[in-house]
Amino acid sequence: MNYLPGTSANLPGQQTGTAHLRLQHSALQISDGVATVTLNRPDRKNPLSFDSYTELRDFFRALSDSKAVHAVVLTGAGGNFCSGGDVHEIIGPLTTMDMPSLLAFTRLTGDLVKAIRHCPQPVIAAIDGVCVGAGAILAMASDIRFATPQTKTAFLFNKVGLAGCDMGACAMLPRLIGQGRASELLFSGRVMTADEGERWGFYNRLTESDQVLATAQQFAAQLASGPTFANSMTKKMLHQEWNMGIDEAIEAEAQAQAICMMTNDFHRAYHAFVARSKPEFEGN
Amino acid sequence: MNYLPGTSANLPGQQTGTAHLRLQHSALQISDGVATVTLNRPDRKNPLSFDSYTELRDFFRALSDSKAVHAVVLTGAGGNFCSGGDVHEIIGPLTTMDMPSLLAFTRLTGDLVKAIRHCPQPVIAAIDGVCVGAGAILAMASDIRFATPQTKTAFLFNKVGLAGCDMGACAMLPRLIGQGRASELLFSGRVMTADEGERWGFYNRLTESDQVLATAQQFAAQLASGPTFANSMTKKMLHQEWNMGIDEAIEAEAQAQAICMMTNDFHRAYHAFVARSKPEFEGN
Amino acid sequence: MNYLPGTSANLPGQQTGTAHLRLQHSALQISDGVATVTLNRPDRKNPLSFDSYTELRDFFRALSDSKAVHAVVLTGAGGNFCSGGDVHEIIGPLTTMDMPSLLAFTRLTGDLVKAIRHCPQPVIAAIDGVCVGAGAILAMASDIRFATPQTKTAFLFNKVGLAGCDMGACAMLPRLIGQGRASELLFSGRVMTADEGERWGFYNRLTESDQVLATAQQFAAQLASGPTFANSMTKKMLHQEWNMGIDEAIEAEAQAQAICMMTNDFHRAYHAFVARSKPEFEGN
Repeated sequence: MNYLPGTSANLPGQQTGTAHLRLQHSALQISDGVATVTLNRPDRKNPLSFDSYTELRDFFRALSDSKAVHAVVLTGAGGNFCSGGDVHEIIGPLTTMDMPSLLAFTRLTGDLVKAIRHCPQPVIAAIDGVCVGAGAILAMASDIRFATPQTKTAFLFNKVGLAGCDMGACAMLPRLIGQGRASELLFSGRVMTADEGERWGFYNRLTESDQVLATAQQFAAQLASGPTFANSMTKKMLHQEWNMGIDEAIEAEAQAQAICMMTNDFHRAYHAFVARSKPEFEGN
Repeated sequence: MNYLPGTSANLPGQQTGTAHLRLQHSALQISDGVATVTLNRPDRKNPLSFDSYTELRDFFRALSDSKAVHAVVLTGAGGNFCSGGDVHEIIGPLTTMDMPSLLAFTRLTGDLVKAIRHCPQPVIAAIDGVCVGAGAILAMASDIRFATPQTKTAFLFNKVGLAGCDMGACAMLPRLIGQGRASELLFSGRVMTADEGERWGFYNRLTESDQVLATAQQFAAQLASGPTFANSMTKKMLHQEWNMGIDEAIEAEAQAQAICMMTNDFHRAYHAFVARSKPEFEGN
Repeated sequence: MNYLPGTSANLPGQQTGTAHLRLQHSALQISDGVATVTLNRPDRKNPLSFDSYTELRDFFRALSDSKAVHAVVLTGAGGNFCSGGDVHEIIGPLTTMDMPSLLAFTRLTGDLVKAIRHCPQPVIAAIDGVCVGAGAILAMASDIRFATPQTKTAFLFNKVGLAGCDMGACAMLPRLIGQGRASELLFSGRVMTADEGERWGFYNRLTESDQVLATAQQFAAQLASGPTFANSMTKKMLHQEWNMGIDEAIEAEAQAQAICMMTNDFHRAYHAFVARSKPEFEGN
């Protein structure tokens, strides 16, 4: 084994345990490197509040420093994913705010999406039932989406007098399902059926309701046991190259992949292949 | 009701009526905030001429100042959408022009697409039969597309010795149906069948020929009775964010949505929700 | 016939014959303006080596100067397309290289993709059987892809401890099949089935194994007998406009198409139409 020299150092702020990862407004369970975040107000179909937005943003930001979590599953309790911004707790107060306060709110919601896109862990959404408004955005902002035949996703901002451009939807939804289909959903606010979502590439797969969380967790566990440093590079480059020319993207990937070839996980894979065994990746 | 203070002002150039909207080479009908534009030379499958290009460009530009039209339906008379630039009236003369004149023409056609993309109203195409060349471009440049099983769309520039890069096709078509499918259509000029167009996301829905115009008009009427200021923001941001990084798009949407939260339509939606009634949007 | 004045000149470096086009590590056959490149180590499912990477890069670069080749078919011998970078000849040596050498390698592989994207000829891949790793990238980098029901394409970099960002995959794959599906394939390294590839727009069409090469060659021959100067402009603009705003793309196409209207192929098409005959394009 010709592994590379060097020690995996702890930089200031990096956390090897999971004690710094806490959620009060949602449920959190961490096992085998997979953090499962469950939006957890099932009586109201898991709406978001100012507090839960803030907490989720901070949680996904904190994941950047975590050395113990390698994949995230995002789901909702009680057969629904998320009913979006709560009408009484969010929309009502918004109608009385001044402009700086409104912008502070829309930036908070956007910062949650940015935190999901910037954390190094792949985020896998397990979606059932209602998935609307900001809930549909959280699904969209995830890397992978598993859903059920009962899932109803709607970007219903138009229905409450707002624009479809919420938390990055006009940039990201066309890239997932095409500009024409995204335009219809964002202009009309109508429900995208589960079948449409699978055909159009919004969902990666449909499974039965009693299987969707397990499917997402198995997929997450597979990634968490893989070359997690390389996975985080895949996520970063999928984000960065969204808006690069092809030639620049190819040079960026030449550099990024050369970095990954300097990891011991790459060496472990090669030596395992030669030995006809399964590589044990360690994320360094 | 805590509506916001302020008066909806008429700026110079803004038009509350529809008298400034006229078409000579196409038919125009306006009702309930929906303008239906019908390409209207059915004996020749509705080809475009220099004059009709110019008139349509000016019409879509004039829509920017219209306060009476809130959605547009674009269709063709006699069971066909559009046969593109007329061979005798356009292609023949082009073969005798010098370079500045050719560029003036290609810019004119591009300006029509820009005018469709920049007018604040959503544009819904109702397409049947022949939809080729510049006609296929007009369909592509619309926001939403309804078609019929008989629709035959072809970007047939290759067939007349030209490149597929016409009026924005190499930028927009890949975003609608994917780069691989767009490449085949633009390199070969072949017909995309109605079924392919629906599967690939070019058409939002297929309906029978006697239903397609009504379907488009109903969809347009629904948008016209919605929060039209917010709709215009959706359209603007779908256009702007085409070429933004995700982080920049999220900040741009935070600003755009904060603007929409300062409209009375947002307040109307909230108060209607609380009162369990249907909101009456006014576009301000 | 009012053809345009001017002579089709040979600039220094331009090659009218095909003698400068040679391949040692792959098979090359040129007929009727179509070059068929066959990856040719069927006993090992046509892996790539340092030498074959270099040779293919130089070949596609040399195509820029060729006036005799107007379309390219890329395929593999013996029922498989390509098994990617050879484990023994490439991956093993990579595990012992220093950083400048690694970057030289990743840039070499990226330069092959750039050469495929920048050569003026459309590249049509005829794919069967195994199409993995760098082989999947060569398929992705082609303009058009025909495959068979037995084709198994996998971006399996993750399986060998590397990132999905290889040779432009994080930029190009989302544009072909959508960001969500691309994310799953690049994070997991799993096989995309032939049926998925067709549904998602990766493959343009599936045919039986004994038909796929002929299908690709017929398509290539059709393009080679078409307006090849205009075709090269289509390819260039599909590449350039990947990362342009819509307004800028429309102006870029106005210029590009005006150039094409100054070719005799455009005139030939018009006169053939008037004469109710089939145009004979000459690529000028």
